[in-house]
Amino acid sequence: MTSARPITIKDIAKRFHCSPSTVSRALNDHPAINEDTRRNIKEYALEVGYQKNEVSLSLLNKKTATLGVVVPSIGHYYETAVIEGLHAVLQPLGYTLNICVTNENYLLEKEYLTKLLSNRIEGIFLSVAQETYDAGYYEHLEQVNQRHTPLIFIDREYETFETSRATVDDYHGAFAAVEHLIQMGYRHIAHLKGPNGLTVTEQRFKGYIDCLRKYNLDISEELIINTNFKVESAIVPTKRLLDLPLPPDAIFGVNDQVAIGAMRVAKDRGLRIPQDIGLVGFDNSPITAYTYPSLTTVGRPGRKIGMEASRLFLNQLNASEDFRHENIVLPAELIIRESTLRLS
Amino acid sequence: MTSARPITIKDIAKRFHCSPSTVSRALNDHPAINEDTRRNIKEYALEVGYQKNEVSLSLLNKKTATLGVVVPSIGHYYETAVIEGLHAVLQPLGYTLNICVTNENYLLEKEYLTKLLSNRIEGIFLSVAQETYDAGYYEHLEQVNQRHTPLIFIDREYETFETSRATVDDYHGAFAAVEHLIQMGYRHIAHLKGPNGLTVTEQRFKGYIDCLRKYNLDISEELIINTNFKVESAIVPTKRLLDLPLPPDAIFGVNDQVAIGAMRVAKDRGLRIPQDIGLVGFDNSPITAYTYPSLTTVGRPGRKIGMEASRLFLNQLNASEDFRHENIVLPAELIIRESTLRLS
Repeated sequence: MTSARPITIKDIAKRFHCSPSTVSRALNDHPAINEDTRRNIKEYALEVGYQKNEVSLSLLNKKTATLGVVVPSIGHYYETAVIEGLHAVLQPLGYTLNICVTNENYLLEKEYLTKLLSNRIEGIFLSVAQETYDAGYYEHLEQVNQRHTPLIFIDREYETFETSRATVDDYHGAFAAVEHLIQMGYRHIAHLKGPNGLTVTEQRFKGYIDCLRKYNLDISEELIINTNFKVESAIVPTKRLLDLPLPPDAIFGVNDQVAIGAMRVAKDRGLRIPQDIGLVGFDNSPITAYTYPSLTTVGRPGRKIGMEASRLFLNQLNASEDFRHENIVLPAELIIRESTLRLS
Repeated sequence: MTSARPITIKDIAKRFHCSPSTVSRALNDHPAINEDTRRNIKEYALEVGYQKNEVSLSLLNKKTATLGVVVPSIGHYYETAVIEGLHAVLQPLGYTLNICVTNENYLLEKEYLTKLLSNRIEGIFLSVAQETYDAGYYEHLEQVNQRHTPLIFIDREYETFETSRATVDDYHGAFAAVEHLIQMGYRHIAHLKGPNGLTVTEQRFKGYIDCLRKYNLDISEELIINTNFKVESAIVPTKRLLDLPLPPDAIFGVNDQVAIGAMRVAKDRGLRIPQDIGLVGFDNSPITAYTYPSLTTVGRPGRKIGMEASRLFLNQLNASEDFRHENIVLPAELIIRESTLRLS
């Protein structure tokens, strides 16, 4: 460097193939920058005689150490587990989380993103609202990218939108649940479905249908009834199923709540579980290990999703110019318990 | 008004015995100001020839319509119900909520409050972290008051701190639960307690003890065992209780999860519920109506607490000078179900 022009943060960034804000963070000992990178950048800065320009740095340095978490709801075990995973990784690094609940509403989601950006949060974890997803709205996400704020999809996501994501494979989880029922000898399997149109509903429904097809079992419309995910919404549908001329010998519930509602109705009818009827839920909420009988279910690794999403965020923050978005899909895990363990 | 000095917002505020920001909101059709007040203020402003001073107003008008909700956790049914109640009232008025989880940590609570204030939120709903409560820290709350930002306690609170609050009467809820067990003929009543020191634990424990005293029943240390609120934490304690030379004929659980864990152990031992052993939980989480047998429990009106807290916030926002803080205590409600309904 022979020029008399003073060395700037941009010069250093160019040298390390990273962003100016990474350099700024490294020089200011920001905890999100790994130690080697910090040391290398600081040594180089010293070597080339870099001098802080306090004025131009003031904006870059004004880090809020705040992250936004935008989710459709916090009423279920899975979402709180994801948030717990985010906390577990990010709080020790000095980050705080602003949790925003959209109630599946697009306008609210958009408003939250705008407000988070204007509060200069450093990253956003987003599970897209159903309305947003259905309508295919993108622009409010593009404003996040334009601000170079890392955006990580958790749970519900746009497949075609270019960003990192950590999601669970619901489809194969549902498939495995129904396959297990078939292997246990159940043949006439009903499905207590979620509300139509929700991604999570349709993925699990598809897993159910495809598995029945694979084993050449009949798909019967009268064995598929909607619920709203709540335990009480399973009561009337289950009664209807058990009143059929040919009632089901197993029920696959869209989630644990619904399967527990079905369990109650089956017991009130004097049915033995799993001998007379098999039951499977979804989510592996803590209670399912202690119902009587305990409930076979499909576990979604919520906490792990939160931790993986944190890692994706930190990677992007420290990214060099050849950074590529990552797509993490964690498997859902079948957990076999008493409610299906029919030994014939 | 004969003076040539132009009429200011402060003059109007004095006339209506309200704060300047209420006047500013009324003139700008802020939804939180009721219609009559808005109309009266606007008519008066027109009458006295008030002219907006754009510069001095710019700060006042820069409302964020954002509120902070600072809670120790979001993992239980009760907290999400409170937040749902806040959403139900405040979202239609155009407010968004920033939810912050302190994990019972004082430093984190303090940091969240500072960040929320620096983001110019318009009000804070707070359930004090256990650490804060135990140490009696106040200063971080006083900074909220100094900024004239409404602060509403929900759930856990400082009795002596001067602010509005909406809480549930846990003590009498627990008392009623134990009294009901006694009326059903149970005499040797155990308590699966929460972690020592937590307010919610100690209030329920006190209700249990005082009720036993009232009915001259023995208080036995071996019948009181700690849990951590989680379903799995009830398993070993319940086994220990049932292995006693004189086992309990009823168990009062600190929450529903713990009572459901106890239910599982009792069933595995072949005990009939409620004939051989009675069980009571706390919270009225949705699942309790559908366990087999259904669980007697104490309902906390979480959604209603959220709605009352919203009302307290709006009252304070529109307050005149003689504003007094309000203290709302909602009763907990005993819900009698199959797990205690022993008809002798």
